[in-house]
Parts: sequence; C-alpha cells; structure tokens
Amino acid sequence: MKYVVTGGAGFVGSYLVSRLADEGHEVIVIDNFSNGSLDNLKGVDVEIRKQNIVTSKIPECDGIFHLATVPRSFSFDDPRNDIEVNCKGMINVLESARESGAKVVFTSNSGIAGSMDLHTPIDENYPDRPTTPYDADKLVCEHYCKMYHDVYDVKCANVRFATIYGYRQVVNEKINWRPLVATFLKRMKNFEKVYINGDGTQTRDLTYVRDAVQGVIKAMNSKIENASVGIISTNTETSVNEVFDILKEKTGYSIAPIFTEPLKGDLKSMKLSYNKASELYGYSPKYTPSQGIDEMVELSG
Amino acid sequence: MKYVVTGGAGFVGSYLVSRLADEGHEVIVIDNFSNGSLDNLKGVDVEIRKQNIVTSKIPECDGIFHLATVPRSFSFDDPRNDIEVNCKGMINVLESARESGAKVVFTSNSGIAGSMDLHTPIDENYPDRPTTPYDADKLVCEHYCKMYHDVYDVKCANVRFATIYGYRQVVNEKINWRPLVATFLKRMKNFEKVYINGDGTQTRDLTYVRDAVQGVIKAMNSKIENASVGIISTNTETSVNEVFDILKEKTGYSIAPIFTEPLKGDLKSMKLSYNKASELYGYSPKYTPSQGIDEMVELSG
Repeated sequence: MKYVVTGGAGFVGSYLVSRLADEGHEVIVIDNFSNGSLDNLKGVDVEIRKQNIVTSKIPECDGIFHLATVPRSFSFDDPRNDIEVNCKGMINVLESARESGAKVVFTSNSGIAGSMDLHTPIDENYPDRPTTPYDADKLVCEHYCKMYHDVYDVKCANVRFATIYGYRQVVNEKINWRPLVATFLKRMKNFEKVYINGDGTQTRDLTYVRDAVQGVIKAMNSKIENASVGIISTNTETSVNEVFDILKEKTGYSIAPIFTEPLKGDLKSMKLSYNKASELYGYSPKYTPSQGIDEMVELSG
Repeated sequence: MKYVVTGGAGFVGSYLVSRLADEGHEVIVIDNFSNGSLDNLKGVDVEIRKQNIVTSKIPECDGIFHLATVPRSFSFDDPRNDIEVNCKGMINVLESARESGAKVVFTSNSGIAGSMDLHTPIDENYPDRPTTPYDADKLVCEHYCKMYHDVYDVKCANVRFATIYGYRQVVNEKINWRPLVATFLKRMKNFEKVYINGDGTQTRDLTYVRDAVQGVIKAMNSKIENASVGIISTNTETSVNEVFDILKEKTGYSIAPIFTEPLKGDLKSMKLSYNKASELYGYSPKYTPSQGIDEMVELSG
C-alpha cells in the first residue's frame, strides 16, 4: 500500500513510518521539521517532503496517517497558530482525502476529557471539557472528520492517545516541554536531580509508543470508515513515583527525588478504557509500563 | 457603558447597536462589511470601524458583543475561511478582553446540536453533533471562552441562537442564502412563486430579532461570567406551512405555494428550551411568530 504520514519525522510518526516501511509499504513523509528530525528516520527508506501541512499538496495514496500537530504545550502561548496548523491542517488532509479517496487516520488526544474527575476509567462518551486550545482544536478536528465522512464519504478512523512515551521523545525543559518518562530518564542519565510535582501519587495511563503505532495501523486496516474515535491506552494507572522507581532500578540512579509544590491544574489520576478501540480496531496494548520503559532505557544506550 | 459590537452592521448586530445607542450607551461597531451594510445603521449615532475581526485592535470597553461571523451557508465551500474568521476572530476577542477586562457575550448557534432527532425540546446538554464547519467552529469557540475564563478570568456569558428572523435579514438565493421568513416575504412582495421543500410540515423555533437582542443584552447585564451558554429561543414549533399562511394573510399574497422535493438533511423539527437562558439571564421571548412577522412585514413597507 501507499501511505502518507504527516508529522512522520516526529516522535510517534517516525516509529510509525519505520514500521510501515518494514512491512513493505511505500511511505511518504510530510513534515515541516519544526519538531521532527531527520535523525528519527535514519536508515528508513522513505520519501520525505519538507512541507507545511496547512498548504502541502498531499499526494494520492491509499491512506493518510495524520499526526502533524503543533504541540499542546505551545497552544496557550499562540492559540492562533494552533488553529492555523491543527484545524486548517486537518481540513487540508480531509480535502485531499476527498479528492483521492484515501482513508484518514487522525490522532486526537484524550486531553479532550479535561480534568477527568467525574468517574474512571475515562471513555469516548466522557463529557468534552478541553482545557487548552490544543485539546479544543483536536475535538473540532474529530467533528470535521465526522462531517466530511457524512457529507463527502471521506473514510476516517480516529484515535485518541493517552500519555505516550518512548525513546526519541523530545524533552525541552526551557520551553516547559517535559514529558514524564523521557524527562526523568534524561535527568537520571545526566546524574541530575529529578523533580516530582506534589507527592508523586498522581497517576498517568502510560502507553508505549509501539502500542500507539499498533493502534493507528489497526485503525487504518479496520473496516471503520465513519470517523469513529477509539482511545489508545492501557487502562492502567501508573503513579509518578512508580515511574521514578522503575527508571531508578533500570538505570541504577541513586539520588533521591525532590518533591516540589503540586502543579496547578495537574491531573490527579488518569485511566482510560481502550474497550472501544478494541472492539473497533482490535487494539490491545502489548507493553506494560515496565516493559516499555525497559526497551526505552535500552534504546537510549 | 461603553460597548463594542463586532458584526454590528449586520442583521442582528444592527438591531443590537440601535438598542444600545437608544439606551444611551457609547457603542463602537467593528465590521468588515462583507455582509453588513451602512444602511442598517442609518440614523444611529455610533462610531464605525471597518475592520477585520481577526486582526482588529478592539478598543478598551466594558463589554464586547461578539457577533461577527462568516455565515453558515458558506462554511462547506470554504472551511478554511470559516476557521480563519470564526475561530481566530474569537481568540482576538478573548485576548482583547483579557487585556481590557471587558466582558464578552458570544453568539453561538443551536446548530451545534446537529440533527436534533434524539428528543425534544433541545437543551444545552444535548449531544454536540455539528454537521457543518460553521457549527463545529461555534462549538470550539464556546470552549475557548470557557478556558479563557478558567485560565485568565475573562468574563463571558454566551448564547446559542435558534432560527432568528426579522426585517433587514439578508436574502441571496443565488448563493443559496434563503432564511425562511425573509425569503418567503421577499418573494410574496415581488409577486413571485414561493417554493416549499417537502410537504412543509417541518418546523422551526422562530425567534424574533428583538428577542435575540433582548437575550444578548440580558446575558451582558447578568452576573454570569464563567462562559455558561444559554439558548435563545421560543420553545415553540412553527411549521413552514404556518409561516406561509401567516405571511400570506399579512401581505395579501394569493398564489398557492409550490411544493418541491424535500431538502437533503433538512431538519424535521426544531424546538429549543430557553429554560437555562431564563435562569441565567432572565430571558424570555416577547414575540410570538405572528407578532414578530407582523412587525417585520410592517417595517418592510
């Protein structure tokens, strides 16, 4: 098959591209390299187009994996750019698919559910209460997919990601970009202090990048075309303290963590059901946090 | 008080501006005149700025009535422009309010509820199922308001309009812009044939423009600041046939209507509860369809 992966030089995108290429598919990457990097695709045989997703002419293909996005962390600093890239980029993808007949898999975000304090686990019917422009824009993109299917028969199967982690995930603490596992690992490897917000009992649904990739590929291969959304998660809570302990054991790090003030608005717990993704796409996670972190530590050398 | 009305030269906007000026308020209109017109503000003492809502510098004021919008009818033809104007325009309004402390009243649309076929009447908790980019963009704007309140303490009180009608409502059948009452009235006054899609039993919740204006002013004057949304409607169904009969009687039109094929995707019924707007803002409609149409016919001369 011939696939386009937008954001294919990014963290999740590059794992996806690599796996599709391994499976023998023809893959075209569209990435503006604002956060992606050529290093992520080293040794992978793909065509790479350095283009902006808002204006790029997406080539004819069988399927478009639409991962290109302005990151969540920047969305309050520049909501107009979030709208420009995330909303108009989605329209560009859908208009291309409308012309070519390609199926679209759009990677949305479980943050649409907001504070997640009503009940647990979260599922796709949980009320939409986005707390950042990024999450609101992901929500509206899901609606665009639905209406492009209903009006133009564009084929879509969408996913919402829980907290994805893995090797090559970008950490940039200067701009407040600190994904949990990657930030801890980076600091441990540099023998730096590790800071834990609050008491560290807050939990996340940690989903390994290869499970995220498995999920989007299964969504593409599924019969779902009506823009349904399935959550890609583990349905398991892992506390920040547990992440620290797992990493500590695997890296041999020996410095005690420093507990700081709780982060304002930090989620107390996060547990997301993947039942629907299982029914729709046949997704189920293959990696426990310990297994995922194990591979992540190994790959980071 | 000093108010800014975006889209203040448009249909609803001009009624609002006129009433605010009558009440002795200082009013500044921001309008790009893509659909608004200077004629709509004839004889009204206001400052008018011909500016684009996406980039205009909104002056300091006590309150911003944000009505400027790209119309629903165009949103599938140019979804990118809908995003540009409706989403980024909202951010511009919210960022201005964040600086000035002005309260925002945003006029959203009941079309967010989509096909409205689950139960009746529709209320604010009805599932979000927008069927056009316009409605999806109105929905995301409501979310922006909510998060700007939660994060930056921007004061917002929002409304969703049912089907608004009144004198000066634009009809342009060439571009498929045919609001029910205004289109029928225009054709009757020109002794042209009136076309009814389907059997004419489909209903609308017809809300007179002065009630819409009453609603947004009450929202502004209310204590609500947390971006709550209240529907401005009449909680009454009026069928297309009834609209025809009322207008026929008031204009003396004597030609029989022509029934055509039902419009694809046309709503079968539309009835929206204004209970929440009543509780939050003290809104209740003052005009029955017959009364509103009566004034509309009279004003149209």
